[in-house]
Amino acid sequence: MSISDEFAFIKDIQPSRLFHEEKVVGIGDDAAIVSLEDGYEKIVCVDTMVEDVHFTRQTMAPFDIGFKALAANISDVAAMGGYPLYYLVSITIPKSWKPEELKEIYDGMKQLGDQYEMDLIGGDTTSGKTMVLSVFVIGKVETGKRLLRSNAKEGDVVFVSGTVGDAAGGLDILLHNGSEPGAYPSLITKHQQPKPQVSLGRILCSYERVSLNDVSDGLASELLEIAEASQVDILINKETIPISDDLRDFNAEKAFSWAMTGGEDFELVGSIPKKDWALLQEECLRSGISITRIGTVHTGTGQVVLKTDEGKQKLKKEGYNHFNRS
Amino acid sequence: MSISDEFAFIKDIQPSRLFHEEKVVGIGDDAAIVSLEDGYEKIVCVDTMVEDVHFTRQTMAPFDIGFKALAANISDVAAMGGYPLYYLVSITIPKSWKPEELKEIYDGMKQLGDQYEMDLIGGDTTSGKTMVLSVFVIGKVETGKRLLRSNAKEGDVVFVSGTVGDAAGGLDILLHNGSEPGAYPSLITKHQQPKPQVSLGRILCSYERVSLNDVSDGLASELLEIAEASQVDILINKETIPISDDLRDFNAEKAFSWAMTGGEDFELVGSIPKKDWALLQEECLRSGISITRIGTVHTGTGQVVLKTDEGKQKLKKEGYNHFNRS
Repeated sequence: MSISDEFAFIKDIQPSRLFHEEKVVGIGDDAAIVSLEDGYEKIVCVDTMVEDVHFTRQTMAPFDIGFKALAANISDVAAMGGYPLYYLVSITIPKSWKPEELKEIYDGMKQLGDQYEMDLIGGDTTSGKTMVLSVFVIGKVETGKRLLRSNAKEGDVVFVSGTVGDAAGGLDILLHNGSEPGAYPSLITKHQQPKPQVSLGRILCSYERVSLNDVSDGLASELLEIAEASQVDILINKETIPISDDLRDFNAEKAFSWAMTGGEDFELVGSIPKKDWALLQEECLRSGISITRIGTVHTGTGQVVLKTDEGKQKLKKEGYNHFNRS
Repeated sequence: MSISDEFAFIKDIQPSRLFHEEKVVGIGDDAAIVSLEDGYEKIVCVDTMVEDVHFTRQTMAPFDIGFKALAANISDVAAMGGYPLYYLVSITIPKSWKPEELKEIYDGMKQLGDQYEMDLIGGDTTSGKTMVLSVFVIGKVETGKRLLRSNAKEGDVVFVSGTVGDAAGGLDILLHNGSEPGAYPSLITKHQQPKPQVSLGRILCSYERVSLNDVSDGLASELLEIAEASQVDILINKETIPISDDLRDFNAEKAFSWAMTGGEDFELVGSIPKKDWALLQEECLRSGISITRIGTVHTGTGQVVLKTDEGKQKLKKEGYNHFNRS
C-alpha cells in the first residue's frame, strides 16, 4: 500500500455519519474531542489482538478479528456497568494484508459498534511484520454507579451469565479440526464473534452493591480477581457451573476445564447481596438474559475454593493468558 | 516471561501514587474511570511505535521508545491546545525482550509523563513477534477553546515553533553513523526524546482563532493538512524556515529537505490572525518559546506554495509516512 493508498484507506474507513455528532469534534485532526453530560464518569479501556497469539488467518476471518477486538473492549465497559460510546483503533499492518481485508476488519468493528451506536473517532495506522490491532474504547457510567471487583462481601450470591467454556471449545475445533467443519457453529461463533453483556451490566448497575468482572481470562482467574480485590473467599459448586449442551456434546471430558480456564467467553461474573438475588433473577428472566448462581462469598483472604463430589480444592490463576512465553 | 512474571511486571509498572487521585478509579479493574470538571472537553488520541519501522534496537534505547511514544501523543494534545492528563499503554512484547528493558520503556514514559503530572491508568500486555507500543492519551481543553486545523483564514500569519528537521538529521546520524558517535547530541536527542510543545499550545489557546498542527509527518505535510482543512492556500518563504545551526553544520545539503519532510520534530505549526501576531511573539519571548513567521495564508483551494530565489513551487505530501510499503 502506497502513501496515497493510505490516505484513501483512512478516508474509506471514516464513518459517514456519527451517532454522537453533537458531542464529537476533530476527527481527522491531531486528536478527537468528546464532551460528556454532567452526572457521568468516563470509562476507558484498551484491548489488543496480535496475529499468531490471539488469532491466526485460519481461526479468524478479518471481519471476526475486528468484531472480537471491539467486543473485548465493550465487555470491559459492561463489566464496569457502563455504556460504550466511542472507539479509536491503532492497527499495525504487515505487507501481506490486502486493502479489502483491512476494510473487513473495520467492517467487523462497525457491525458490532453500530449495535451500540458507537463512533469510531480516531486512530493510527502503521506498518509492521505482525498484524496488531489495539482498540481503545471510551464509555460512560452514571457518577458513583460503577461496578468494581472490590465490592464483594460475605454472604453474597456469586453468579455468572450465559454459559462458559464455549469460546475455548470453538477454538479447539478451529485449531485441531477435532470435528467435521461446520459442526457446533454456536461454539465457533462464541470464539469468533463473542457478544458482550452490556444489558446485564446496566441491570446490575441499578443494584446497591455488585462486584463484577468479565470472563476474558477464564472463570477461575476472574473469580480470583474478585476474591483478591474484595479480600474475601469465594466457594464455588462444580455442578452449578453453566456448561452448554453443545460443549458437553463436543468434548465431555474437557468441557469443565474449558469452562474454568478457557476464557474469552465475555460473560459477566460477579456477586450481589443475597437479599437482591431473587429480584435480579426476575429482571434477567424478563430481559431474556441467562444468569446462574454458582457459589457464595465468605470471609477470607482472597481464595477461590471449588466444591466437587470428591471434596474441595483451591483454584489457581491458570486462565488463558497471552503473555505466557514458557 | 511466565504468567506469574506478568502479574509481577504489571504490579511493578503500576504507579505508586496518582497525580489526579480524586478523579480516577478502577486501575487494575476491567477499565479505568475518570471524571472531568465541568467546562472542559476531553481530548483523546493514540500513537503507535513499531520495532523496525519507527525504531530499531540500535537507534533507540528502551527508555527512548517509551519517552517518544508518549511524546508523540502529548504533542497531539498540544496541537489541540490542551493539557495531557492520563495514558493507557498497549504493549506487544517479543520473547527476546528482557523484563528490565520493558521496565525502562515504562520509565521513559513515566519521566515525561511526570513532567505533565500524567497518570498511567490502564493497558494491555500481549506477546508477539514484533515490539509494538500503542499509547492512548486523554487530555482536556476548555470547552470551545480547541485548536483545529480548519481555522486558517486569508491574511493570517503562518508560524512554526523551534527548528525543524533536527529529528531527521539525528536519525540519519544514528542510521548511517555519518559522523563520529556523540557528535551533534542536540540532533540525536531531538530524534530520541522530542519535547512536546504543551506550553505553546496553551498560549495559543488564549487567542480568538488559531489553526494548529504538530510536526509529526513533516512541515510540508502538516501545512498541506491545514490548507486543505481550512480550504485556503499557504505561501511559505524558503529562507524563513527555521533550521538549526547544528543541522546546517551536520549536512548543509540535506538540511532543508529534512526540515520540510523529515517529520517527528513535534514542533507546532499553525496560523494566527495578523493583528495578533505581535502579541503572540511577545508572549512567546517572555515564556522562552521560539516561534518564527514562515508565511501567509491566502484565498485558495488547499495548496501550499514554497517561494524560493528560483521562483515558486507547489508542495506535495511527501512527509515521513510509516505506511509506505513500496
